[in-house]
Amino acid sequence: MSAPPRLSHGRLAVRPSLKPRALMDDPPEVATAWAATVLTIFPGLFPGPLAESLTGQALAKGLWRLDALDIRAFARDKHRSVDGPPAGGGPGMVMRPDVVSAAIDSAWDGVRPILYLSPRGRPFTQARAAELARGKGAILLCGRFEGVDQRVLDGRAVEEVSVGDFVMTGGEIPAMALIDGVVRLLPGVLGNAASVEEESFAGGLLEAPCYTRPPEWEGRATPEVLLSGHHARIADWRKAQAEAVTKERRPDLWRAHVARPADPDEARELSDAQTFAGTGGPMKEHDQ
Amino acid sequence: MSAPPRLSHGRLAVRPSLKPRALMDDPPEVATAWAATVLTIFPGLFPGPLAESLTGQALAKGLWRLDALDIRAFARDKHRSVDGPPAGGGPGMVMRPDVVSAAIDSAWDGVRPILYLSPRGRPFTQARAAELARGKGAILLCGRFEGVDQRVLDGRAVEEVSVGDFVMTGGEIPAMALIDGVVRLLPGVLGNAASVEEESFAGGLLEAPCYTRPPEWEGRATPEVLLSGHHARIADWRKAQAEAVTKERRPDLWRAHVARPADPDEARELSDAQTFAGTGGPMKEHDQ
Repeated sequence: MSAPPRLSHGRLAVRPSLKPRALMDDPPEVATAWAATVLTIFPGLFPGPLAESLTGQALAKGLWRLDALDIRAFARDKHRSVDGPPAGGGPGMVMRPDVVSAAIDSAWDGVRPILYLSPRGRPFTQARAAELARGKGAILLCGRFEGVDQRVLDGRAVEEVSVGDFVMTGGEIPAMALIDGVVRLLPGVLGNAASVEEESFAGGLLEAPCYTRPPEWEGRATPEVLLSGHHARIADWRKAQAEAVTKERRPDLWRAHVARPADPDEARELSDAQTFAGTGGPMKEHDQ
Repeated sequence: MSAPPRLSHGRLAVRPSLKPRALMDDPPEVATAWAATVLTIFPGLFPGPLAESLTGQALAKGLWRLDALDIRAFARDKHRSVDGPPAGGGPGMVMRPDVVSAAIDSAWDGVRPILYLSPRGRPFTQARAAELARGKGAILLCGRFEGVDQRVLDGRAVEEVSVGDFVMTGGEIPAMALIDGVVRLLPGVLGNAASVEEESFAGGLLEAPCYTRPPEWEGRATPEVLLSGHHARIADWRKAQAEAVTKERRPDLWRAHVARPADPDEARELSDAQTFAGTGGPMKEHDQ
Protein backbone atom coordinates (compact mmCIF):
# COMPACT_ATOMS: atom_id res chain seq x y z
CA MET A 1 0.00 0.00 0.00
CA SER A 2 1.37 3.42 -0.90
CA ALA A 3 0.99 6.38 1.43
CA PRO A 4 -1.97 8.64 0.68
CA PRO A 5 -1.17 11.67 -1.48
CA ARG A 6 -0.15 14.68 0.55
CA LEU A 7 0.15 18.39 0.08
CA SER A 8 3.74 19.41 -0.60
CA HIS A 9 5.13 22.92 -1.13
CA GLY A 10 1.66 24.26 -1.22
CA ARG A 11 0.58 22.32 -4.29
CA LEU A 12 -2.76 20.58 -4.46
CA ALA A 13 -2.75 16.90 -3.63
CA VAL A 14 -3.42 14.90 -6.76
CA ARG A 15 -6.25 12.44 -6.22
CA PRO A 16 -7.93 10.34 -8.86
CA SER A 17 -11.40 11.65 -9.59
CA LEU A 18 -14.05 11.31 -12.25
CA LYS A 19 -14.81 15.01 -11.87
CA PRO A 20 -12.54 17.17 -14.06
CA ARG A 21 -10.71 19.81 -12.08
CA ALA A 22 -9.61 23.05 -13.69
CA LEU A 23 -6.21 23.61 -12.13
CA MET A 24 -5.25 26.34 -14.58
CA ASP A 25 -8.56 27.96 -15.35
CA ASP A 26 -9.42 29.18 -11.90
CA PRO A 27 -6.63 31.26 -10.42
CA PRO A 28 -7.17 32.54 -6.87
CA GLU A 29 -8.67 35.86 -8.04
CA VAL A 30 -11.76 33.96 -9.18
CA ALA A 31 -13.02 34.35 -5.64
CA THR A 32 -12.64 38.14 -5.58
CA ALA A 33 -15.34 40.58 -6.53
CA TRP A 34 -15.94 42.01 -10.00
CA ALA A 35 -13.71 45.08 -10.21
CA ALA A 36 -14.00 48.29 -12.20
CA THR A 37 -10.94 50.54 -12.44
CA VAL A 38 -11.73 53.92 -13.98
CA LEU A 39 -8.93 56.02 -15.52
CA THR A 40 -10.04 59.66 -15.55
CA ILE A 41 -8.89 63.22 -14.97
CA PHE A 42 -11.95 63.61 -12.71
CA PRO A 43 -11.58 60.78 -10.18
CA GLY A 44 -13.78 62.71 -7.75
CA LEU A 45 -16.83 61.99 -9.91
CA PHE A 46 -16.72 58.34 -8.78
CA PRO A 47 -18.58 56.51 -7.38
CA GLY A 48 -21.10 59.37 -7.78
CA PRO A 49 -24.51 57.98 -8.77
CA LEU A 50 -23.13 54.43 -8.50
CA ALA A 51 -22.98 54.89 -4.72
CA GLU A 52 -26.79 55.00 -4.52
CA SER A 53 -29.52 52.41 -4.68
CA LEU A 54 -28.84 48.87 -5.93
CA THR A 55 -25.34 49.48 -7.26
CA GLY A 56 -24.40 51.35 -4.08
CA GLN A 57 -25.80 48.66 -1.79
CA ALA A 58 -23.90 46.02 -3.75
CA LEU A 59 -20.72 48.10 -3.53
CA ALA A 60 -21.13 48.40 0.24
CA LYS A 61 -21.65 44.62 0.48
CA GLY A 62 -18.46 43.95 -1.49
CA LEU A 63 -20.28 42.37 -4.44
CA TRP A 64 -18.15 44.55 -6.71
CA ARG A 65 -15.23 46.97 -6.36
CA LEU A 66 -14.55 50.39 -7.83
CA ASP A 67 -11.29 52.33 -8.09
CA ALA A 68 -10.80 55.63 -9.85
CA LEU A 69 -7.23 56.53 -10.89
CA ASP A 70 -6.27 60.10 -11.75
CA ILE A 71 -4.62 60.10 -15.20
CA ARG A 72 -2.96 63.41 -14.32
CA ALA A 73 -0.91 61.59 -11.66
CA PHE A 74 0.92 59.85 -14.56
CA ALA A 75 1.95 63.08 -16.30
CA ARG A 76 5.71 63.56 -16.39
CA ASP A 77 6.21 67.29 -16.77
CA LYS A 78 5.95 69.92 -14.08
CA HIS A 79 2.61 71.22 -15.44
CA ARG A 80 1.10 67.74 -15.18
CA SER A 81 -0.09 68.08 -18.75
CA VAL A 82 -1.99 65.11 -20.16
CA ASP A 83 -2.66 66.46 -23.64
CA GLY A 84 -1.15 68.07 -26.70
CA PRO A 85 -2.32 69.69 -29.96
CA PRO A 86 -3.63 67.32 -32.64
CA ALA A 87 -1.00 66.27 -35.19
CA GLY A 88 -2.04 67.69 -38.57
CA GLY A 89 -3.94 70.58 -36.98
CA GLY A 90 -7.53 71.14 -35.96
CA PRO A 91 -9.39 72.29 -32.88
CA GLY A 92 -9.04 70.91 -29.38
CA MET A 93 -6.41 68.79 -27.70
CA VAL A 94 -5.51 65.07 -27.78
CA MET A 95 -4.54 62.95 -24.76
CA ARG A 96 -0.86 61.90 -24.88
CA PRO A 97 0.04 58.22 -25.44
CA ASP A 98 2.87 58.21 -22.89
CA VAL A 99 0.68 59.53 -20.07
CA VAL A 100 -2.38 57.40 -20.87
CA SER A 101 -0.29 54.23 -21.31
CA ALA A 102 1.31 54.76 -17.90
CA ALA A 103 -2.13 54.98 -16.32
CA ILE A 104 -3.29 51.85 -18.16
CA ASP A 105 -0.16 49.91 -17.21
CA SER A 106 -0.62 50.73 -13.54
CA ALA A 107 -4.11 49.24 -13.62
CA TRP A 108 -3.61 46.30 -15.94
CA ASP A 109 -3.68 42.81 -14.45
CA GLY A 110 -3.60 40.71 -17.61
CA VAL A 111 -7.19 39.65 -17.02
CA ARG A 112 -9.64 42.49 -17.36
CA PRO A 113 -10.38 44.09 -20.75
CA ILE A 114 -9.48 47.75 -21.28
CA LEU A 115 -12.47 49.68 -22.60
CA TYR A 116 -12.34 53.20 -23.98
CA LEU A 117 -15.65 55.09 -23.97
CA SER A 118 -15.95 56.78 -27.35
CA PRO A 119 -18.63 57.50 -29.97
CA ARG A 120 -16.23 55.84 -32.46
CA GLY A 121 -16.60 52.54 -30.62
CA ARG A 122 -18.80 49.58 -31.33
CA PRO A 123 -22.20 50.04 -29.65
CA PHE A 124 -22.38 48.69 -26.11
CA THR A 125 -25.21 46.16 -25.87
CA GLN A 126 -27.01 44.05 -23.30
CA ALA A 127 -25.15 41.01 -24.67
CA ARG A 128 -21.79 42.71 -24.04
CA ALA A 129 -22.94 43.72 -20.54
CA ALA A 130 -23.76 40.08 -19.77
CA GLU A 131 -20.39 38.96 -21.14
CA LEU A 132 -18.55 41.48 -18.96
CA ALA A 133 -20.59 40.42 -15.93
CA ARG A 134 -19.30 36.86 -16.39
CA GLY A 135 -15.70 38.17 -16.33
CA LYS A 136 -13.48 39.62 -13.63
CA GLY A 137 -14.17 43.29 -14.26
CA ALA A 138 -13.09 46.04 -16.61
CA ILE A 139 -10.61 48.89 -16.90
CA LEU A 140 -12.43 51.94 -18.20
CA LEU A 141 -10.54 54.74 -19.92
CA CYS A 142 -12.41 58.06 -19.92
CA GLY A 143 -11.42 60.50 -22.67
CA ARG A 144 -11.68 64.25 -22.53
CA PHE A 145 -10.76 66.91 -25.10
CA GLU A 146 -10.68 65.59 -28.72
CA GLY A 147 -9.87 62.04 -27.64
CA VAL A 148 -6.89 59.77 -27.02
CA ASP A 149 -3.84 59.25 -29.26
CA GLN A 150 -4.58 56.27 -31.51
CA ARG A 151 -1.20 54.65 -30.77
CA VAL A 152 -2.05 53.94 -27.15
CA LEU A 153 -5.35 52.35 -28.25
CA ASP A 154 -3.40 50.12 -30.67
CA GLY A 155 -0.44 49.51 -28.36
CA ARG A 156 -2.51 48.44 -25.37
CA ALA A 157 -5.25 46.50 -27.20
CA VAL A 158 -7.88 48.93 -26.03
CA GLU A 159 -11.47 48.18 -27.09
CA GLU A 160 -13.51 51.25 -28.06
CA VAL A 161 -17.13 51.08 -26.95
CA SER A 162 -19.94 53.57 -27.51
CA VAL A 163 -22.98 53.92 -25.27
CA GLY A 164 -24.89 55.95 -27.85
CA ASP A 165 -24.72 57.86 -31.12
CA PHE A 166 -24.12 61.25 -29.57
CA VAL A 167 -21.11 63.19 -28.33
CA MET A 168 -20.54 63.97 -24.65
CA THR A 169 -17.98 66.20 -22.93
CA GLY A 170 -16.14 63.19 -21.51
CA GLY A 171 -16.17 59.46 -20.91
CA GLU A 172 -17.10 59.62 -17.23
CA ILE A 173 -20.91 59.54 -17.57
CA PRO A 174 -20.75 56.79 -20.25
CA ALA A 175 -18.46 54.80 -17.92
CA MET A 176 -21.05 55.12 -15.15
CA ALA A 177 -23.74 53.92 -17.56
CA LEU A 178 -21.67 50.90 -18.59
CA ILE A 179 -20.78 49.97 -15.00
CA ASP A 180 -24.42 50.29 -13.90
CA GLY A 181 -25.52 48.05 -16.78
CA VAL A 182 -22.99 45.36 -15.86
CA VAL A 183 -23.17 45.49 -12.05
CA ARG A 184 -26.94 44.91 -12.00
CA LEU A 185 -26.28 41.57 -13.73
CA LEU A 186 -23.80 40.34 -11.09
CA PRO A 187 -25.09 37.55 -8.83
CA GLY A 188 -26.84 38.91 -5.75
CA VAL A 189 -27.21 42.50 -6.93
CA LEU A 190 -30.85 42.43 -8.05
CA GLY A 191 -33.25 41.08 -5.48
CA ASN A 192 -35.29 39.22 -8.04
CA ALA A 193 -33.14 37.24 -10.46
CA ALA A 194 -36.23 36.24 -12.43
CA SER A 195 -36.32 39.65 -14.06
CA VAL A 196 -32.89 39.31 -15.57
CA GLU A 197 -33.69 35.85 -16.88
CA GLU A 198 -36.90 37.15 -18.40
CA GLU A 199 -34.95 39.92 -20.09
CA SER A 200 -32.40 37.72 -21.72
CA PHE A 201 -34.49 35.06 -23.47
CA ALA A 202 -37.04 37.17 -25.24
CA GLY A 203 -35.14 37.31 -28.51
CA GLY A 204 -34.29 40.96 -28.94
CA LEU A 205 -37.70 42.61 -28.57
CA LEU A 206 -38.57 45.74 -26.64
CA GLU A 207 -40.81 45.07 -23.67
CA ALA A 208 -44.59 45.37 -23.56
CA PRO A 209 -46.05 48.40 -21.76
CA CYS A 210 -46.65 48.02 -18.03
CA TYR A 211 -49.51 49.06 -15.75
CA THR A 212 -50.24 49.18 -12.03
CA ARG A 213 -52.97 50.54 -9.78
CA PRO A 214 -55.33 52.26 -9.88
CA PRO A 215 -57.22 50.20 -12.51
CA GLU A 216 -58.69 53.42 -13.86
CA TRP A 217 -56.86 56.74 -13.94
CA GLU A 218 -58.12 59.93 -15.63
CA GLY A 219 -60.60 57.84 -17.59
CA ARG A 220 -57.86 55.52 -18.85
CA ALA A 221 -58.38 51.87 -17.94
CA THR A 222 -55.77 49.18 -17.50
CA PRO A 223 -56.15 46.74 -20.44
CA GLU A 224 -58.80 44.24 -19.39
CA VAL A 225 -56.71 41.19 -20.25
CA LEU A 226 -54.16 42.16 -17.57
CA LEU A 227 -56.89 42.07 -14.93
CA SER A 228 -58.32 38.75 -16.20
CA GLY A 229 -56.00 36.47 -14.24
CA HIS A 230 -55.71 34.35 -17.40
CA HIS A 231 -51.96 33.75 -17.59
CA ALA A 232 -51.80 32.38 -21.13
CA ARG A 233 -53.84 35.27 -22.55
CA ILE A 234 -51.70 37.75 -20.62
CA ALA A 235 -48.53 36.19 -22.05
CA ASP A 236 -49.98 36.33 -25.58
CA TRP A 237 -50.98 39.97 -25.16
CA ARG A 238 -47.54 40.92 -23.88
CA LYS A 239 -45.86 39.15 -26.78
CA ALA A 240 -48.08 40.92 -29.33
CA GLN A 241 -47.43 44.29 -27.66
CA ALA A 242 -43.68 43.68 -27.56
CA GLU A 243 -43.71 42.86 -31.27
CA ALA A 244 -45.80 45.91 -32.12
CA VAL A 245 -43.64 48.39 -30.20
CA THR A 246 -40.42 46.90 -31.61
CA LYS A 247 -41.77 47.04 -35.17
CA GLU A 248 -42.84 50.66 -34.75
CA ARG A 249 -39.84 52.09 -32.89
CA ARG A 250 -36.94 49.87 -33.86
CA PRO A 251 -37.25 48.51 -37.38
CA ASP A 252 -33.57 47.49 -37.07
CA LEU A 253 -34.26 45.20 -34.10
CA TRP A 254 -37.43 43.93 -35.72
CA ARG A 255 -35.62 42.93 -38.92
CA ALA A 256 -33.03 41.08 -36.83
CA HIS A 257 -35.77 39.38 -34.83
CA VAL A 258 -37.74 38.08 -37.80
CA ALA A 259 -34.60 37.06 -39.68
CA ARG A 260 -33.17 35.10 -36.76
CA PRO A 261 -34.95 31.73 -36.88
CA ALA A 262 -34.90 31.42 -40.68
CA ASP A 263 -31.28 32.36 -41.28
CA PRO A 264 -28.98 32.85 -38.29
CA ASP A 265 -26.16 34.34 -40.38
CA GLU A 266 -28.36 37.02 -41.82
CA ALA A 267 -29.74 37.77 -38.39
CA ARG A 268 -26.22 38.20 -37.06
CA GLU A 269 -25.36 40.60 -39.82
CA LEU A 270 -28.53 42.61 -39.42
CA SER A 271 -28.35 42.90 -35.70
CA ASP A 272 -24.57 43.31 -35.80
CA ALA A 273 -23.38 45.45 -32.95
CA GLN A 274 -26.82 46.61 -31.96
CA THR A 275 -28.78 43.60 -30.81
CA PHE A 276 -30.78 44.35 -27.72
CA ALA A 277 -30.52 41.08 -25.87
CA GLY A 278 -32.90 42.08 -23.11
CA THR A 279 -36.60 42.67 -23.46
CA GLY A 280 -35.62 45.79 -21.70
CA GLY A 281 -38.18 46.69 -19.19
CA PRO A 282 -37.62 50.38 -18.83
CA MET A 283 -34.91 50.71 -16.20
CA LYS A 284 -35.49 47.62 -14.19
CA GLU A 285 -34.89 47.80 -10.49
CA HIS A 286 -36.45 45.57 -7.97
CA ASP A 287 -35.05 45.66 -4.56
CA GLN A 288 -34.53 49.11 -3.22
CA MET B 1 -57.23 113.60 -34.81
CA SER B 2 -57.45 110.69 -32.40
CA ALA B 3 -55.18 110.46 -29.38
CA PRO B 4 -52.02 108.36 -29.77
CA PRO B 5 -52.33 104.75 -28.64
CA ARG B 6 -51.46 104.30 -24.98
CA LEU B 7 -50.66 101.51 -22.62
CA SER B 8 -53.70 100.46 -20.69
CA HIS B 9 -54.06 97.70 -18.10
CA GLY B 10 -50.54 96.57 -18.79
CA ARG B 11 -51.09 95.72 -22.44
CA LEU B 12 -48.55 96.63 -25.08
CA ALA B 13 -49.23 99.83 -26.98
CA VAL B 14 -50.23 98.99 -30.54
CA ARG B 15 -48.16 100.99 -33.03
CA PRO B 16 -47.96 100.56 -36.75
CA SER B 17 -44.67 98.95 -37.78
CA LEU B 18 -43.20 97.24 -40.81
CA LYS B 19 -41.45 94.80 -38.55
CA PRO B 20 -43.65 91.80 -37.63
CA ARG B 21 -43.96 91.33 -33.92
CA ALA B 22 -44.64 87.93 -32.41
CA LEU B 23 -46.95 88.76 -29.56
CA MET B 24 -47.92 85.15 -28.94
CA ASP B 25 -44.83 83.21 -29.96
CA ASP B 26 -42.30 84.69 -27.61
CA PRO B 27 -43.44 84.63 -24.02
CA PRO B 28 -41.07 86.25 -21.51
CA GLU B 29 -39.25 82.96 -20.76
CA VAL B 30 -37.63 83.10 -24.22
CA ALA B 31 -34.88 85.18 -22.68
CA THR B 32 -34.09 82.71 -19.90
CA ALA B 33 -31.50 79.96 -20.00
CA TRP B 34 -32.02 76.42 -21.30
CA ALA B 35 -33.58 74.53 -18.40
CA ALA B 36 -33.54 70.87 -17.45
CA THR B 37 -36.03 69.67 -14.83
CA VAL B 38 -35.33 66.11 -13.68
CA LEU B 39 -38.11 64.05 -12.04
CA THR B 40 -36.50 61.34 -9.93
CA ILE B 41 -36.72 59.50 -6.63
CA PHE B 42 -32.99 60.29 -6.20
CA PRO B 43 -32.84 64.09 -6.53
CA GLY B 44 -29.59 64.11 -4.55
CA LEU B 45 -27.77 62.55 -7.52
CA PHE B 46 -28.05 65.88 -9.38
CA PRO B 47 -26.14 67.84 -10.54
CA GLY B 48 -23.52 65.14 -9.74
CA PRO B 49 -21.05 64.82 -12.62
CA LEU B 50 -22.79 67.69 -14.43
CA ALA B 51 -21.41 70.08 -11.79
CA GLU B 52 -17.83 69.49 -13.06
CA SER B 53 -15.86 70.69 -16.02
CA LEU B 54 -17.56 72.38 -18.99
CA THR B 55 -21.15 71.61 -18.02
CA GLY B 56 -20.46 72.72 -14.44
CA GLN B 57 -18.77 75.96 -15.49
CA ALA B 58 -21.70 76.71 -17.80
CA LEU B 59 -24.15 75.97 -14.98
CA ALA B 60 -22.28 78.35 -12.68
CA LYS B 61 -22.35 81.03 -15.40
CA GLY B 62 -26.13 80.63 -15.81
CA LEU B 63 -25.87 79.35 -19.39
CA TRP B 64 -28.29 76.61 -18.39
CA ARG B 65 -30.43 75.69 -15.36
CA LEU B 66 -31.02 72.41 -13.57
CA ASP B 67 -33.75 71.44 -11.11
CA ALA B 68 -34.31 67.99 -9.65
CA LEU B 69 -37.79 67.26 -8.26
CA ASP B 70 -38.39 64.36 -5.89
CA ILE B 71 -41.20 62.20 -7.32
CA ARG B 72 -41.80 60.83 -3.82
CA ALA B 73 -42.97 64.29 -2.73
CA PHE B 74 -46.02 63.75 -4.98
CA ALA B 75 -47.08 60.47 -3.37
CA ARG B 76 -50.44 60.72 -1.63
CA ASP B 77 -50.41 57.96 0.97
CA LYS B 78 -48.68 58.01 4.32
CA HIS B 79 -45.94 55.61 3.15
CA ARG B 80 -45.07 57.93 0.25
CA SER B 81 -45.31 54.96 -2.08
CA VAL B 82 -44.64 55.70 -5.73
CA ASP B 83 -45.13 52.19 -7.13
CA GLY B 84 -47.40 49.17 -7.24
CA PRO B 85 -47.27 45.57 -8.50
CA PRO B 86 -47.53 45.09 -12.28
CA ALA B 87 -51.07 44.45 -13.52
CA GLY B 88 -51.17 40.92 -14.94
CA GLY B 89 -48.35 39.73 -12.69
CA GLY B 90 -44.60 39.47 -13.06
CA PRO B 91 -41.53 40.53 -11.13
CA GLY B 92 -40.76 44.03 -9.89
CA MET B 93 -42.87 47.11 -9.35
CA VAL B 94 -44.34 49.76 -11.66
CA MET B 95 -44.44 53.51 -10.98
CA ARG B 96 -48.00 54.77 -10.41
CA PRO B 97 -49.66 57.05 -12.96
CA ASP B 98 -51.27 59.32 -10.37
CA VAL B 99 -47.98 60.04 -8.59
CA VAL B 100 -45.87 60.45 -11.74
CA SER B 101 -48.46 62.66 -13.44
CA ALA B 102 -48.54 64.97 -10.41
CA ALA B 103 -44.77 65.36 -10.63
CA ILE B 104 -44.94 66.03 -14.38
CA ASP B 105 -47.76 68.55 -13.98
CA SER B 106 -45.82 70.50 -11.38
CA ALA B 107 -42.92 70.88 -13.83
CA TRP B 108 -44.75 71.36 -17.09
CA ASP B 109 -44.72 74.80 -18.68
CA GLY B 110 -46.35 74.03 -22.02
CA VAL B 111 -43.05 74.59 -23.78
CA ARG B 112 -40.45 71.96 -22.93
CA PRO B 113 -40.82 68.35 -24.12
CA ILE B 114 -41.22 65.61 -21.52
CA LEU B 115 -38.67 62.84 -22.09
CA TYR B 116 -38.72 59.45 -20.38
CA LEU B 117 -35.39 57.61 -20.33
CA SER B 118 -36.12 54.01 -21.28
CA PRO B 119 -34.57 51.22 -23.37
CA ARG B 120 -37.98 51.02 -25.09
CA GLY B 121 -37.52 54.52 -26.46
CA ARG B 122 -36.28 55.70 -29.81
CA PRO B 123 -32.48 56.00 -29.77
CA PHE B 124 -31.19 59.39 -28.70
CA THR B 125 -28.94 60.81 -31.42
CA GLN B 126 -26.70 63.78 -32.06
CA ALA B 127 -29.42 65.22 -34.30
CA ARG B 128 -31.95 65.07 -31.45
CA ALA B 129 -29.39 66.64 -29.09
CA ALA B 130 -28.96 69.55 -31.51
CA GLU B 131 -32.73 69.93 -31.81
CA LEU B 132 -33.16 70.03 -28.02
CA ALA B 133 -30.30 72.56 -27.75
CA ARG B 134 -32.28 74.91 -30.03
CA GLY B 135 -35.30 74.65 -27.69
CA LYS B 136 -36.04 75.93 -24.20
CA GLY B 137 -35.02 72.84 -22.26
CA ALA B 138 -36.44 69.47 -21.32
CA ILE B 139 -38.32 67.72 -18.53
CA LEU B 140 -36.64 64.38 -17.86
CA LEU B 141 -38.55 61.56 -16.19
CA CYS B 142 -36.29 58.94 -14.57
CA GLY B 143 -37.82 55.51 -14.12
CA ARG B 144 -36.88 52.98 -11.48
CA PHE B 145 -38.24 49.50 -10.80
CA GLU B 146 -39.92 47.89 -13.86
CA GLY B 147 -40.85 51.22 -15.40
CA VAL B 148 -43.72 53.71 -15.49
CA ASP B 149 -47.42 53.00 -16.01
CA GLN B 150 -48.11 53.34 -19.73
CA ARG B 151 -51.19 55.54 -19.13
CA VAL B 152 -49.16 58.45 -17.82
CA LEU B 153 -46.86 58.22 -20.84
CA ASP B 154 -49.93 58.38 -23.11
CA GLY B 155 -51.84 60.92 -21.03
CA ARG B 156 -49.00 63.43 -20.79
CA ALA B 157 -47.54 63.00 -24.29
CA VAL B 158 -44.28 61.71 -22.91
CA GLU B 159 -41.55 60.87 -25.44
CA GLU B 160 -39.55 57.73 -24.65
CA VAL B 161 -35.86 58.03 -25.49
CA SER B 162 -33.11 55.45 -25.16
CA VAL B 163 -29.43 56.27 -24.75
CA GLY B 164 -28.34 52.73 -25.59
CA ASP B 165 -29.43 49.13 -26.15
CA PHE B 166 -28.81 47.98 -22.61
CA VAL B 167 -30.75 48.04 -19.34
CA MET B 168 -29.72 50.17 -16.37
CA THR B 169 -31.00 50.30 -12.79
CA GLY B 170 -32.64 53.68 -13.35
CA GLY B 171 -33.02 56.67 -15.62
CA GLU B 172 -30.73 58.99 -13.68
CA ILE B 173 -27.41 58.17 -15.40
CA PRO B 174 -29.05 58.20 -18.86
CA ALA B 175 -30.58 61.60 -17.99
CA MET B 176 -27.11 62.90 -17.12
CA ALA B 177 -25.79 61.58 -20.43
CA LEU B 178 -28.58 63.28 -22.37
CA ILE B 179 -28.17 66.60 -20.54
CA ASP B 180 -24.39 66.53 -21.06
CA GLY B 181 -24.87 65.87 -24.78
CA VAL B 182 -27.27 68.80 -25.15
CA VAL B 183 -25.63 71.36 -22.86
CA ARG B 184 -22.28 71.16 -24.68
CA LEU B 185 -24.11 72.36 -27.81
CA LEU B 186 -25.56 75.48 -26.14
CA PRO B 187 -24.00 78.77 -27.25
CA GLY B 188 -20.99 79.72 -25.14
CA VAL B 189 -20.50 76.35 -23.44
CA LEU B 190 -17.64 74.99 -25.55
CA GLY B 191 -14.70 77.33 -25.88
CA ASN B 192 -14.13 76.46 -29.51
CA ALA B 193 -17.34 76.48 -31.53
CA ALA B 194 -15.45 75.26 -34.60
CA SER B 195 -15.42 71.72 -33.22
CA VAL B 196 -19.19 71.49 -33.03
CA GLU B 197 -19.51 72.84 -36.58
CA GLU B 198 -16.96 70.35 -37.81
CA GLU B 199 -18.93 67.56 -36.13
CA SER B 200 -22.21 68.35 -37.72
CA PHE B 201 -21.38 68.62 -41.41
CA ALA B 202 -19.42 65.45 -41.97
CA GLY B 203 -22.41 63.39 -43.07
CA GLY B 204 -22.73 60.72 -40.44
CA LEU B 205 -19.22 59.24 -40.36
CA LEU B 206 -17.17 58.29 -37.33
CA GLU B 207 -14.12 60.47 -36.90
CA ALA B 208 -10.58 59.68 -38.06
CA PRO B 209 -8.06 58.61 -35.40
CA CYS B 210 -6.14 61.39 -33.69
CA TYR B 211 -2.50 61.78 -32.68
CA THR B 212 -0.39 64.21 -30.66
CA ARG B 213 3.17 64.38 -29.39
CA PRO B 214 5.58 62.72 -29.14
CA PRO B 215 5.92 61.97 -32.89
CA GLU B 216 7.28 58.53 -32.00
CA TRP B 217 6.14 56.51 -28.99
CA GLU B 218 7.18 52.92 -28.24
CA GLY B 219 8.32 52.54 -31.84
CA ARG B 220 4.96 53.72 -33.16
CA ALA B 221 5.16 56.78 -35.40
CA THR B 222 2.52 59.41 -36.03
CA PRO B 223 1.34 58.96 -39.66
CA GLU B 224 3.72 60.97 -41.83
CA VAL B 225 1.00 62.82 -43.67
CA LEU B 226 -0.13 64.48 -40.41
CA LEU B 227 3.35 65.94 -39.94
CA SER B 228 3.60 67.07 -43.59
CA GLY B 229 1.87 70.42 -43.15
CA HIS B 230 0.02 69.71 -46.40
CA HIS B 231 -3.54 70.65 -45.51
CA ALA B 232 -5.28 69.13 -48.52
CA ARG B 233 -3.49 65.78 -48.12
CA ILE B 234 -4.28 65.79 -44.39
CA ALA B 235 -7.96 66.41 -45.14
CA ASP B 236 -7.99 63.58 -47.71
CA TRP B 237 -6.30 61.20 -45.27
CA ARG B 238 -8.77 62.03 -42.51
CA LYS B 239 -11.71 61.49 -44.85
CA ALA B 240 -10.39 58.10 -45.97
CA GLN B 241 -9.76 57.07 -42.37
CA ALA B 242 -13.23 58.19 -41.29
CA GLU B 243 -14.77 56.15 -44.10
CA ALA B 244 -12.68 53.08 -43.26
CA VAL B 245 -13.50 53.09 -39.54
CA THR B 246 -17.20 53.67 -40.19
CA LYS B 247 -17.32 50.84 -42.73
CA GLU B 248 -15.59 48.47 -40.34
CA ARG B 249 -17.36 49.29 -37.08
CA ARG B 250 -20.74 50.64 -38.09
CA PRO B 251 -22.03 49.06 -41.29
CA ASP B 252 -25.41 50.59 -40.41
CA LEU B 253 -24.04 54.14 -40.51
CA TRP B 254 -21.97 53.35 -43.59
CA ARG B 255 -25.02 52.08 -45.51
CA ALA B 256 -26.90 55.25 -44.57
CA HIS B 257 -23.93 57.38 -45.63
CA VAL B 258 -23.49 55.84 -49.06
CA ALA B 259 -27.24 55.74 -49.69
CA ARG B 260 -27.76 59.38 -48.78
CA PRO B 261 -26.79 61.29 -51.93
CA ALA B 262 -28.34 58.81 -54.34
CA ASP B 263 -31.68 58.32 -52.62
CA PRO B 264 -32.57 60.47 -49.62
CA ASP B 265 -35.67 58.41 -48.74
CA GLU B 266 -33.75 55.19 -48.54
CA ALA B 267 -31.07 56.89 -46.49
CA ARG B 268 -33.69 58.11 -44.07
CA GLU B 269 -35.11 54.65 -43.68
CA LEU B 270 -31.73 53.02 -43.24
CA SER B 271 -30.42 55.51 -40.77
CA ASP B 272 -33.82 55.85 -39.13
CA ALA B 273 -33.44 56.42 -35.43
CA GLN B 274 -29.74 55.77 -35.39
CA THR B 275 -28.06 58.38 -37.54
CA PHE B 276 -24.93 59.73 -35.97
CA ALA B 277 -25.04 63.33 -37.06
CA GLY B 278 -21.67 64.22 -35.62
CA THR B 279 -18.34 62.99 -36.83
CA GLY B 280 -17.99 62.18 -33.21
CA GLY B 281 -14.55 62.90 -32.09
CA PRO B 282 -14.21 60.74 -29.03
CA MET B 283 -15.61 62.79 -26.19
CA LYS B 284 -14.86 66.27 -27.39
CA GLU B 285 -13.96 68.85 -24.83
CA HIS B 286 -11.99 71.93 -25.52
CA ASP B 287 -11.89 74.48 -22.87
CA GLN B 288 -11.17 73.14 -19.45
